[in-house]
Amino acid sequence: MYRTHTCGELNLSNKGQEVTLAGWVQRIRNLGGMTFIDLRDRYGITQLVFNMEKNAKLCDEARSLGREYVIQVKGIVAERENKNPKIPTGEIEILVDELKIINPSTLPPFTIEDETDGGEEIRMKYRYLDLRRNPLKNNLLLRHRMAQEVRKYLDEQQFVEIETPVLMKSTPEGARDFVVPSRMNPGQFYALPQSPQTLKQILMVAGYDRYFQIVKCFRDEDLRADRQPEFTQIDCEMSFVDRDDVLNLFEGLIKHLFKTIKGIEFAEPFLRMSYTDAMHFYGSDKPDIRFEMKITEITKLAKGKGFGIFDQAEYIGCINASGCAEYSRKDIDALTDFVKRPQVGASGLVYVKYQTDGTLKSSVDKFYSNDELKVWIETANAKPGDLLLILSGQKEKTLKALGTLRLEMADRLNLRKHDVFAPLWVIDFPLLEWDEEMQRFFATHHPFTAPVDEDISYFNSDPTKIRAKAYDMVINGVEVGGGSVRIHQKELQAKMFETLGFTKEEAEYQFGFLMNAFQYGAPPHAGIAFGFDRLVSLFAGLDSIRDVIAFPKNNAGRDLMLDSPSYLTEAQLKELRIKTIPDEEK
Amino acid sequence: MYRTHTCGELNLSNKGQEVTLAGWVQRIRNLGGMTFIDLRDRYGITQLVFNMEKNAKLCDEARSLGREYVIQVKGIVAERENKNPKIPTGEIEILVDELKIINPSTLPPFTIEDETDGGEEIRMKYRYLDLRRNPLKNNLLLRHRMAQEVRKYLDEQQFVEIETPVLMKSTPEGARDFVVPSRMNPGQFYALPQSPQTLKQILMVAGYDRYFQIVKCFRDEDLRADRQPEFTQIDCEMSFVDRDDVLNLFEGLIKHLFKTIKGIEFAEPFLRMSYTDAMHFYGSDKPDIRFEMKITEITKLAKGKGFGIFDQAEYIGCINASGCAEYSRKDIDALTDFVKRPQVGASGLVYVKYQTDGTLKSSVDKFYSNDELKVWIETANAKPGDLLLILSGQKEKTLKALGTLRLEMADRLNLRKHDVFAPLWVIDFPLLEWDEEMQRFFATHHPFTAPVDEDISYFNSDPTKIRAKAYDMVINGVEVGGGSVRIHQKELQAKMFETLGFTKEEAEYQFGFLMNAFQYGAPPHAGIAFGFDRLVSLFAGLDSIRDVIAFPKNNAGRDLMLDSPSYLTEAQLKELRIKTIPDEEK
Repeated sequence: MYRTHTCGELNLSNKGQEVTLAGWVQRIRNLGGMTFIDLRDRYGITQLVFNMEKNAKLCDEARSLGREYVIQVKGIVAERENKNPKIPTGEIEILVDELKIINPSTLPPFTIEDETDGGEEIRMKYRYLDLRRNPLKNNLLLRHRMAQEVRKYLDEQQFVEIETPVLMKSTPEGARDFVVPSRMNPGQFYALPQSPQTLKQILMVAGYDRYFQIVKCFRDEDLRADRQPEFTQIDCEMSFVDRDDVLNLFEGLIKHLFKTIKGIEFAEPFLRMSYTDAMHFYGSDKPDIRFEMKITEITKLAKGKGFGIFDQAEYIGCINASGCAEYSRKDIDALTDFVKRPQVGASGLVYVKYQTDGTLKSSVDKFYSNDELKVWIETANAKPGDLLLILSGQKEKTLKALGTLRLEMADRLNLRKHDVFAPLWVIDFPLLEWDEEMQRFFATHHPFTAPVDEDISYFNSDPTKIRAKAYDMVINGVEVGGGSVRIHQKELQAKMFETLGFTKEEAEYQFGFLMNAFQYGAPPHAGIAFGFDRLVSLFAGLDSIRDVIAFPKNNAGRDLMLDSPSYLTEAQLKELRIKTIPDEEK
Repeated sequence: MYRTHTCGELNLSNKGQEVTLAGWVQRIRNLGGMTFIDLRDRYGITQLVFNMEKNAKLCDEARSLGREYVIQVKGIVAERENKNPKIPTGEIEILVDELKIINPSTLPPFTIEDETDGGEEIRMKYRYLDLRRNPLKNNLLLRHRMAQEVRKYLDEQQFVEIETPVLMKSTPEGARDFVVPSRMNPGQFYALPQSPQTLKQILMVAGYDRYFQIVKCFRDEDLRADRQPEFTQIDCEMSFVDRDDVLNLFEGLIKHLFKTIKGIEFAEPFLRMSYTDAMHFYGSDKPDIRFEMKITEITKLAKGKGFGIFDQAEYIGCINASGCAEYSRKDIDALTDFVKRPQVGASGLVYVKYQTDGTLKSSVDKFYSNDELKVWIETANAKPGDLLLILSGQKEKTLKALGTLRLEMADRLNLRKHDVFAPLWVIDFPLLEWDEEMQRFFATHHPFTAPVDEDISYFNSDPTKIRAKAYDMVINGVEVGGGSVRIHQKELQAKMFETLGFTKEEAEYQFGFLMNAFQYGAPPHAGIAFGFDRLVSLFAGLDSIRDVIAFPKNNAGRDLMLDSPSYLTEAQLKELRIKTIPDEEK
């Protein structure tokens, strides 16, 4: 062992002890006769002292060290004169007698501090240096702790962790697969799992009753800011349960995490909101309910009064921006530009200011009387000092735009605090969505989701009316998990595939094993999967998942440190019996 | 919830309670007026009773059920007349009032019993049925329990579980990689990790101090009986430690597992045996020390006495088969055939019987006097009734053959009991092995293993003499784990690559990121990886890993249930910019 203690554990109770520490040189300060070094390891920082009067040679050696050198020191624990109350070791320092350089370091290309001067690219390339910084280290330690607590909770609930294969089968339904050529079966490929969905259902058929896995999943998608080609799921499935059993049990999991990791107790059950209400009041299927600012529909109040834009609109709705009546022309213009951005897609913005003196001011007061505007104000529960922001148009699109505007206003009003957590369940999603372009139905969740019993008859009349036994857990506007009661009857599953436009042969080829399994005593079952990266980033107060992953890929799917992906040798390709197609043959 | 209790928890304390159970029909017995059903779930079996006199209709329904039907029943817990002490629910039965068929079952193609009538192939295809059988279920539950205990121990030792990528970089050194074409980087490929070796070292450079992961690894090898293309490792690495620190800590892990899982306590430290001694006394680098029967060298005693075969041999050695002096001509012939098999490779077998009357009988008594044979007997510590089995030839080959013969004899003498566990460390492996065919050195462990300090000078004289700071944990003749102190200096790592025949460019291309990292303050570090599948199968008393994996592949690398690997669509191939090469172009 190179040390008797870590750099994070010594305090006044160790005073006078001889200790050996090892770690990295974080900082060197030369103060005339004294040299101070902050020695760092994963556990903390300990101050080392070298005294020129006592040992000039040693002090010179200390001064010759560079940042990030790995050293080993032996010395006596002493009480500090200038105590640092911010760190656990801040009351002591080590009077060093012996110093050994274990490994020198080239000067790092960026500073290893909480706030670094390194750009994104260089930090990805030297990930081992970036990972030394406290923010990233704390994220990975948090991730570890959360994974252990997830397992602890589920293990206590009799869930069994069962590993499912990474070398799976390609199923064109859903996102694009990553595939792996099989050398032993030339011309054939494995696929990396987009999720262990079908296999966890198989495990239910096999009688395992409660399964979970913290598992890597893969999607070959064009990467956006917060996507990674490989990501981690807390994947769960259980048998002989209804929807509410699942909601209660996994609400328990999330409460357990909040309690053990963040010390936050949720005494009340989480809110359960229907998809319809979520869209209606928040313009989103993942509402951020840390703040109110619900959408209020005013279609009936505002339509047919001669204002052309509203008269033509299918839907008119507003949000009440509390305390914003003083917004200037410029503020309103900025908001108008915001809602007109293609990502939001509104054609314009109407406002009503309910001024603190009780008067109303609106961009449409030409068309509406003060009394008419007053009714809007009352309907939206606005108080003097508030500002109504109104959008109109096609219903679904307008609701979504209002939802986006709502979040924007909340950001401006600083209502989305990283240390406030507002979880809820969104339930009763539609089972199917019609895709205009493809002229076919797609499953809102996936083809294994069970319909609500009383809606099954709609399969033959109006499939869009079928509600799914599906549920999402949403925290702070982020969908952290989702799942459903599954279909466990062969006939219903076949009906679902038929509705999705699968031929019998296609359904058989891709999912025959599952439909087969359903013939041999499949129990009713349901499950859920949480996006673990996202859950950790939420707990860490981050907006992106990249910094809760040790070795993430960039937006081109590359690992800049490994310089991967890379080219294979001709021999490798030949053995796999594949050829790559150069650009010109594209 | 479909049930108030599981099928494994009711006992006399529940007598008189109304309960609802759900599960699978394991067995139906019609005894005139009574029908008994064994209802099964993951937790156990509960006996259901249907009484023809009380409710003829219900009893008829019960009789109409088939094996593996999923049913739900409501009834009263009653005391059984004929108690079954073998199962926890054996004192009670359920007097059923209501019965509901949740899902019927087609007759399974093999019986769902501890001993099944199904062949290997059909059980793989219907894996969900095979997994219902107790032996497999118990294996997976054991695996779960072991995984949790591994995590618990390592977490308490401040190890951090950190996920490393599955989409890695191909490194031709070592076994064959599975590769994944990158759509976003046409012509380039990721590789699935053979182990997270380099990344865990990077994590040490990043200062994480103690890392672990229970992680899938991949090797595209031709599959033998006990190999799988994907397998699971307990992968660990730690910083600022010497070899003995690692041995002590991970000996602790294995002791923890034996104690918590099997109730076995190992009070003494595990034996540490040098590679040289292992080869010398056991003819194997993974000796089974559940029994003695050490190899005794008698080269000097037996050579030069006119027996040509021995006179020409580099090495002559024997094992003492205790109590086998009565072996018949036929027995000896069978052993001779055994050692002559190509896998063993001996040219013949010489024996000396030390008969219970004190006389000696040998296949070579023409060449050796009774007194000479007596010396062999004494050297090998044989007692009356014992049998010496002697092989000769080239030293290393003969030792290995003696090692194999030793295991064969132990099997015949029933000395390899599944419920006896004999762990040890094998240490001081050679760092390098010379490959005659390739005319180059290969790393015995891998290129990152550190040499023993005092042997470093041999790099320039006789590299085969360099011992490695490597160690294997062996239990019952199975290598369950292995690791080493790693090289943490860039120069030494470069020297190692040079010795292995890498050009500077090759080393840079494949492992540049690691050598680079070593320049920025790499701490001394060491690690180990345990084969988790193998460890579980050892604890389960099995010889193969296949039955401790939920969804294994067959020897052709196929998943018979999923029918995977499979063909991709033309569109998929096109998007990935690859072509498969049909047979004729091979």
